[in-house]
Order: sequence, then C-alpha cells, then structure tokens
Amino acid sequence: MVYNFNAGPGILPLEVLESAQRALSDFNGTGLSILEIGHRTAAFEAVVCEGQQLARELMNLSDTQEVLFLQGGATTQFFQVPMNFLASDAVAAYVDAGIWGAKAIQEARLWGGVEVIGSSKADGYTHIPKSYAIPAKASYLHLTTNNTVEGTELHDIPETDVPLVADMSSDILSRRMDYRRFALLYAGAQKNLGAAGVTLVVIDRTQLGRQARQVPGMMDYRKHIEHGSMLNTPPVFAVYVSVLTLRWLHAKGGAEVLDAENRQKSDLLYGTLDSLPLFRPTVAREDRSRMNIVFRIEDPRLEQAFMERCKDEGMVGIRGHRSVGGFRISLYNALPIGHVRVLTDLMHDFAARH
Amino acid sequence: MVYNFNAGPGILPLEVLESAQRALSDFNGTGLSILEIGHRTAAFEAVVCEGQQLARELMNLSDTQEVLFLQGGATTQFFQVPMNFLASDAVAAYVDAGIWGAKAIQEARLWGGVEVIGSSKADGYTHIPKSYAIPAKASYLHLTTNNTVEGTELHDIPETDVPLVADMSSDILSRRMDYRRFALLYAGAQKNLGAAGVTLVVIDRTQLGRQARQVPGMMDYRKHIEHGSMLNTPPVFAVYVSVLTLRWLHAKGGAEVLDAENRQKSDLLYGTLDSLPLFRPTVAREDRSRMNIVFRIEDPRLEQAFMERCKDEGMVGIRGHRSVGGFRISLYNALPIGHVRVLTDLMHDFAARH
Repeated sequence: MVYNFNAGPGILPLEVLESAQRALSDFNGTGLSILEIGHRTAAFEAVVCEGQQLARELMNLSDTQEVLFLQGGATTQFFQVPMNFLASDAVAAYVDAGIWGAKAIQEARLWGGVEVIGSSKADGYTHIPKSYAIPAKASYLHLTTNNTVEGTELHDIPETDVPLVADMSSDILSRRMDYRRFALLYAGAQKNLGAAGVTLVVIDRTQLGRQARQVPGMMDYRKHIEHGSMLNTPPVFAVYVSVLTLRWLHAKGGAEVLDAENRQKSDLLYGTLDSLPLFRPTVAREDRSRMNIVFRIEDPRLEQAFMERCKDEGMVGIRGHRSVGGFRISLYNALPIGHVRVLTDLMHDFAARH
Repeated sequence: MVYNFNAGPGILPLEVLESAQRALSDFNGTGLSILEIGHRTAAFEAVVCEGQQLARELMNLSDTQEVLFLQGGATTQFFQVPMNFLASDAVAAYVDAGIWGAKAIQEARLWGGVEVIGSSKADGYTHIPKSYAIPAKASYLHLTTNNTVEGTELHDIPETDVPLVADMSSDILSRRMDYRRFALLYAGAQKNLGAAGVTLVVIDRTQLGRQARQVPGMMDYRKHIEHGSMLNTPPVFAVYVSVLTLRWLHAKGGAEVLDAENRQKSDLLYGTLDSLPLFRPTVAREDRSRMNIVFRIEDPRLEQAFMERCKDEGMVGIRGHRSVGGFRISLYNALPIGHVRVLTDLMHDFAARH
C-alpha cells in the first residue's frame, strides 16, 4: 500500500484514474485513444463544455465569470495577469505571504507599479499578513489563498472594492468560498483538480479591456474566451482528467462536503501534532492550512528516524519543501481520511517509542 | 477498425499507448500513477533526461543545442521567439508560406521589425516561396518546414548565415534533416512526437542573450535551460508520452528509417491521386508534403459521396481544414503503410464506380 501525501502533483481519486485509463484505449466509444482524437471534434468539445459547466456549478459562479482551461501553470498566470490588467502607469497591490506569492510579485514588476501592502517574509512566512490598507486606486489586489510550501491558508478574504485576483492552486474547491467575489482566480490543476499540464482560470469578463497594452494572442484572455478555451490545441488529456475530477467532486456533493471532510482530516492531523510534544507545527495556529500541514521534529536524529519509519510504511511525499525543511503532509481532496489515520497512528507509536 | 488520418492530435504507436496506459496505474513500479508522482522525483527526472538524450541523438544535435519540453504549443513559440530574439529596433525575416506562419508573423510584429521576404499568400499558399533574398542584418529567419493546413513542405532549407528558426510541428523527425543548422526549432508534440500539451524546443544556447529586453521567467529560455526544463511543474504525462514516442522512434531506427517509410506512404497516396483524374491534389508538385496530403474532388456531390464512403470504412480525420476545403490525409510517423493502402484501394474502387 502506498500513502500519497505529495504536495503536487498529488493523489487523485481512483475512479478518475480508472476512467482516464479506459479513455487511453477507447475514448467514448470512438475506437480511438483520447490522445489521438481531434480537439475540434464534437466529442471533445462536449468535454470542455461539461468542464466549464461543472466548474461554474461547483463554484456557483456569476453569469459574467468565464471558465478557461489554459496551459503554463500558475507561473504563467504570474505574468499573464499583470500583462492584461496592470497598465505601466498604474499600481497593483500584492500580499507577500509565501514564496509563490513572492514570485508573482516579481513578475508583476515587469509591467507596472507594485505595492506590497503586507508581508510576512521577515517572519519566514509563518503567518498570513492581516492588518493592511488596500489602496483604493489599485488595479487589483493579488492574494494567494493557500501557501503550499509554508502551510498557511487565508481563511478570510478581505472586504474591498478593489478587484480581487487570487492564486488558488492548492486549495481550490477544497472548501466553501465565495468564488463570485474574484475578478480573476487561477489554479494549476495538479493538486485538487487533476493532473499537471492545465490551469483553471476563472475570469470576470467585465473586468477585461481596462488597459490598452497589446498582448500576444496566447496571453489575451479575451481571445481565449472568444474561442471557447480552444484558441490553439488544448492539452487534451490534462483537460479530460480535470473534467473527470470535477465530475467526481460534483458527485461527492461539491465544496460543502469537501470542506467538512478536509476539516476532519486536518483536525485529526493537527490534533495529533498538538498532543505530541515531539512534533512542532511551524505556522501560526489561526493561519493553519487544511491542505498542507507543515511541522518539524527538533532532534535531527529523530527527524531522520521518523522519515525512515514513514518510508517503511509506504508513505511518500512527506518531506518539507527545501526552503522550509522538516515535514509537509498534503491532504488534498482525493486523500481518504483513513490514510491520515494510518499516519497519526504511526505518529503516536513513534512518539511512544522515543 | 478505425483508420486515423487526423491532422493532429493524430495517430500514436500502439505500444506508446499501451505503455502510457500501464503508467496510469503504476509508474515504474512506484505503486503510483504517473499522474500522481512528484515531478522532482528521481524517477521522473530520469524520464526528462532520457527524453533530452533521445532527442539529441535522433536529431544528431551539437553540444551547444539544448532540448526543452515546454507548454503552450507552437502558438506560444510564435511570440516567445521574438520576445527573446528580436530587439525593438531590429528586424527579423519571415517566410509567409501558410496560415500558421502568418500567425507567427503577426505575433512577431508586437516586438520589433518584421520583413516578410517571401509569400505565397496571393496564390492561396499552394506553393512554397523560394526566390527571396535574406537580409544579412536580420536577427533571424523564421521558416515553417511543413504547412499542415495547406499540405506543402519545405524540402530544401535555405543556405544563409542568418540564424535559422523553424516551426517543425508537423514534420519533425519524419525525415532526414540537418537539425544542427537551427538556432531554434520547435514542434508541438501532438503530431509526430506524442500527445497535446507539450512542445519540444531545441535551442542553441550561444544564440541567447543577444538582446536586452526583460522577459517573464516562464518566457525566458535561459531560465528553462538553467532548470533542466523544470522551471515549474512540467506537463508530466505529456512529457512522458513524448519520451515513449522518442523511444519508439529510436527503436525503429530514427529519422533515416522514418524518412524512407514516409516517402513510401506518401508516394503511394500521391501516385494514386495522380493516376485517378477524379482527384486533384491542390499544391505545387515540387512542394508536396509527405505528412499532409491535400486534394479535392471537383464535383460537390462526389465529394460528399467520397466522404461518406470513407466514413463507412472507419476512416477519420480526412476532411480538409475549413480554410482550404476538400480532403486532407495525414500520414504521421505512427501510421502504418497498410492503412494508406486501404485508402488507396478505396480510392480506386470509388473512381471505378464514378
């Protein structure tokens, strides 16, 4: 048995993997592999439409919000967002709450003014900056809703009239959230939404066209909307796996149900960590992520022993990001609570022995 | 039986599909699906290295040419190339030989001067422009080696000291070619190299850094080289399918063998078309593509009847691009000659009946 606590690409639902595997030999009874079909066929266009519809329903989007499946990961959104939304003489507000958000800030500076209105960098990103003023004239406010590396999560989205832009790569559809509030949100699929190679982008079309910079066709959200997310050949298989995952999320009951399950899973793990002095969670209690649980063991020998014990039990993906060290356990939507229990049992046993 | 003449995404070797399918349930004995593994694991890093090595060997690249697996398709390369290589006060030379090349020209104009040194647009792109002068001061010359839509192929790469850049999306590794001559070449994988979602880019690193524009990290070839094609999460599965396809190409004997096979296949089809007055190939004989064979049937009723006959026999992907009409038969590397013979037999029979 393998217990997959990878931070992303991460665990996927078994039925998604099984459906994807079937489609590799015969997609929808066409006699062709999903890898060999034309993307402009009715069968694949139906997949894209279904995905857009499911995302719309699962996030309860408004009529002006468009759903796109793009390429290039969140890292491409880091520059595509300011390229489209930030005029060279305007200013965007950014919150600097983790290394991915810091990368977004760096990419934005190429296009216009950037005001970092809050930062927890000096504290090693162990908490989410909270008391900041949002400049009313900002073109947008950029947030990261969950910091995958550091293990913090933004539990309350700030109230503001400034258009909100958010990187939701590691917590999209893992919890209840008012997705209607965002002018633009994006998420690399490889954590909660499918496989690597596709990025979900939700964009309020009324926010587009406010600045005049000419952008390349592939970087122009309006062109992607106009072409129904098929401006060029989309990453067909990655889109298909995302649609399968959206179907699975929908069948489970959506964000409401996932919110409860993910709360249970993370409560179980944090509760165990808090009860055992051997382990030390590294981030501020009120900002704890429900997706990525980061902790340390002070004694390096015990750290090594714990790593080996986990490995022996078939656990993978538990090493913390190299910038943080220690351990990181990712509890994405597809991870059953039983797998968390195997880990917490192991933790109790390990603590008793040491 | 399905005969897949799709223009791309197109037919893939059966053994590639079977290996991909196995990796969906268990990648390399890890007990995890290829969709669930970390991209920074030794097992996946080995896949990327193997792919780079195979591409290097199959194309007989020089030591200064780097192999990258990127996202965004050839359409992204249309702007990424000039963004990196064309200073705002410099000029690049382009040959306008088809609708994809024309899109590349349009994207280049955003970044600097563009001189279209040859165009067959006025003739409906039915031939490849040939007698043109290449301005010595051009930052590069951009070519499309095969025009997927129109069915023409550039059989002779021009001699010049100007750095050569080429879109090889639809004929890469389908024929013998001196790949060392290119400063940069790119190919969307979904025709001869695998599945949609990854683009092979080969780049001579000595050509980089000649202009000073600051570009976003994701668009900077130097950053991708520095990070071994893992600047961010790569499209893991699409890369894997490409590496499986490169393995298959290597096992077959490489470009030399494919060149001979593709010549046989296209000779068989063109020979049939030329022998039957009912069918009319649409492009100049000396520029005929070996990958995409485009032809018409003058009588619209017969065109319809032929379409239905092909459909009845299980043939897919034979309709010409909407901008050209008629028929297009794509004979990518993975298509067995037997499938061409089934089609040519049908053509003889159809011609005899009408």
